Amino acid sequence: MSNMIKGNAVIGQSGGPTMVINQSLVGVIETLKSCRSIPKIMGARHGVSGIVKNDFFDLKKVTKSELERIANTPAAALGSSRDKPDEAYCEEIFKTFEKNDVRYFFYIGGNDSADTARIVNEMAKAKDYELRVFHIPKTIDNDLRVTDHTPGYGSAARFVASAFAGEDRDSASLPGVKISVVMGRNAGWLTAASVLGMQDSACGPHLVYVPEVAFSTEQFTDDVKRVYSKHGRCLIAVSEGVADKTGTPMMVNLAERLGHTVERDSHGNAQLSGSGALGDFLAEYIKQNVTLGRHKLRVRADTYGYLQRSFSGYASPVDQKEARTAGRKAAEFIMKGDIDGSVVMKRAKGEKYSISYERAELKDVARETKHLPRNFINKAGNGITAGYVKYALPLIGELPKLGKLM
Amino acid sequence: MSNMIKGNAVIGQSGGPTMVINQSLVGVIETLKSCRSIPKIMGARHGVSGIVKNDFFDLKKVTKSELERIANTPAAALGSSRDKPDEAYCEEIFKTFEKNDVRYFFYIGGNDSADTARIVNEMAKAKDYELRVFHIPKTIDNDLRVTDHTPGYGSAARFVASAFAGEDRDSASLPGVKISVVMGRNAGWLTAASVLGMQDSACGPHLVYVPEVAFSTEQFTDDVKRVYSKHGRCLIAVSEGVADKTGTPMMVNLAERLGHTVERDSHGNAQLSGSGALGDFLAEYIKQNVTLGRHKLRVRADTYGYLQRSFSGYASPVDQKEARTAGRKAAEFIMKGDIDGSVVMKRAKGEKYSISYERAELKDVARETKHLPRNFINKAGNGITAGYVKYALPLIGELPKLGKLM
Repeated sequence: MSNMIKGNAVIGQSGGPTMVINQSLVGVIETLKSCRSIPKIMGARHGVSGIVKNDFFDLKKVTKSELERIANTPAAALGSSRDKPDEAYCEEIFKTFEKNDVRYFFYIGGNDSADTARIVNEMAKAKDYELRVFHIPKTIDNDLRVTDHTPGYGSAARFVASAFAGEDRDSASLPGVKISVVMGRNAGWLTAASVLGMQDSACGPHLVYVPEVAFSTEQFTDDVKRVYSKHGRCLIAVSEGVADKTGTPMMVNLAERLGHTVERDSHGNAQLSGSGALGDFLAEYIKQNVTLGRHKLRVRADTYGYLQRSFSGYASPVDQKEARTAGRKAAEFIMKGDIDGSVVMKRAKGEKYSISYERAELKDVARETKHLPRNFINKAGNGITAGYVKYALPLIGELPKLGKLM
Repeated sequence: MSNMIKGNAVIGQSGGPTMVINQSLVGVIETLKSCRSIPKIMGARHGVSGIVKNDFFDLKKVTKSELERIANTPAAALGSSRDKPDEAYCEEIFKTFEKNDVRYFFYIGGNDSADTARIVNEMAKAKDYELRVFHIPKTIDNDLRVTDHTPGYGSAARFVASAFAGEDRDSASLPGVKISVVMGRNAGWLTAASVLGMQDSACGPHLVYVPEVAFSTEQFTDDVKRVYSKHGRCLIAVSEGVADKTGTPMMVNLAERLGHTVERDSHGNAQLSGSGALGDFLAEYIKQNVTLGRHKLRVRADTYGYLQRSFSGYASPVDQKEARTAGRKAAEFIMKGDIDGSVVMKRAKGEKYSISYERAELKDVARETKHLPRNFINKAGNGITAGYVKYALPLIGELPKLGKLM
């Protein structure tokens, strides 16, 4: 195309993987492959860290059938990275780009990754180096402001919805209190998905707690007593990031009580995943604080953990398609001459679900976390509304039709 | 049929649910429905406890399409029970049977349930009450001696295989040490399934620990160091029931160290599921005991929990079909005049996977746990052999074809 400059392309993947992040990768590759202005499509091994080490895969070599298998594989095929580049790090990135005549840079990731893309882009401008930078969103957290939803969310939500649909039947089989902890540090989007497989209003989850509402152990015990009295069982969905009214995550609260070190990543965020402590703590709390007559409550807790982002073979078909298209669109935008940006999805108004793909400014992606709007959470702060269900149901693909006798 | 006595049928479900226990239920119902000698098909609400309370569903009323939806729903549609009937309890069961003219009793469950069926059967004989009793096996644990495998195992194994196939790619994306704890109190069948989705020998799980081999924390740290040095990461599958050389489960060991009460069920078994403690303990142990040069290891643990038995929408098609057939065969055996027994599956010799259904004595089902044979575990006691893969692969249905760049 006339407004393309000749040069190589680098693609990287960053942050926590999703079930469809490779769909976006393959969407970029298959679109660039036909482009004569781009001799090399270089895959950065482990994101920015591969760039500074000059460690790349030659992605033009990968066959169409191999690409298709990779697209259907969860987690980042190029390897991911949690590095947050500073100025010196970015200097190293540019040395590699100049050395390899890289003129196109695609970075697939969440809000931290959009921020990295923005910094790289600004350095390119300051150095008058002609570089086109595109960010392709992915995150199971669905917490990017500029887009209707993020690629990766629909598949994680499908997993959580199917998990709770089964948990509900399990809990009806062998009644008790069951707490399941869902990923989500700051926003309750994924935890909200726990309601999407409900057959009717007697089904669980009967209580849903998200980080958007301050968690109170008093309300928690009252809620559990009330639900248990009514249904003879209680199924609970809790975000890993639920916090007390001072803003302290319950997980940190717990870790400190138990004398454990709270591990933090290179961005300074406390490590909330990869431990069953929050669920175990909540279960223990119910055992100690809720009794119903002579009834000894059977309380169990599970923490879904990495399965929510990496389970193989159960991605949402809608999400797979959208993630693929997001990758293709990023490549098309860049080939049309758009210098930089991020791909966002806009939902058409009206009853029929339909998505169009647009360009957003990089600086707008990284800015803030998108929380669950208040009208997606019930008044009592312990449940999810029909408004959310209407928003989310088209994203997860069809669920199996279940049946029940009680 | 000529050798049938006229009377009603009771069906119950017992023990930990599976993804396909309702297939067996529906298999019994659809086969009995056509039988004129059986006026009522009564579903016992919550197993034996529903029988003594005279609390039944009228299963002839349930439509064909509702039955089909129930068959595809995880967990026990009739409700399950963990009661282990004693003599007095069995007296109550008989009062209900006599009162309702029950002549056919189907009990779908694991080894404890087979034992209950056997006791009920012996009481019937002692009282000269003509009762035909059939047990239909189900358990995700695959630990019944008399059958090639148990309905329920294939689906749980499919879940675990797909979970680890994704975990492996997640771990390649963001390397570290990842420990995932799989259900299995006494036998490592389900944990062994972690290897079924491996694309090649570099893929994880790199280490697999099962209850059949005494767990040593010294060998564990040595194993992790060796694998990490070789692959730069280490993915580990551990049975919840792993025990030290004295036979004490590591979970109990841990709970006592931390000052928690070890909860026990009515059968006196320690509660191993429904807590993330074992995984968290093992992760902590690695953090404290393994260092590789300046490298600080990233260690995470997940405990798969109830999802392994109740996840909705991802059952093994082979398992679904076999569980349905097991229910049908039980009803056919009883209609042919077989007084009592349990349905067992025999695998045909030869390369092609093929199953036939036979009758076993109730007393032979309950007798002992079937452990992983030694030749399914590698010499070092930390991995699973090709012999197991050959045995288990036909049970889980086709897995998605994955791809990789590294």
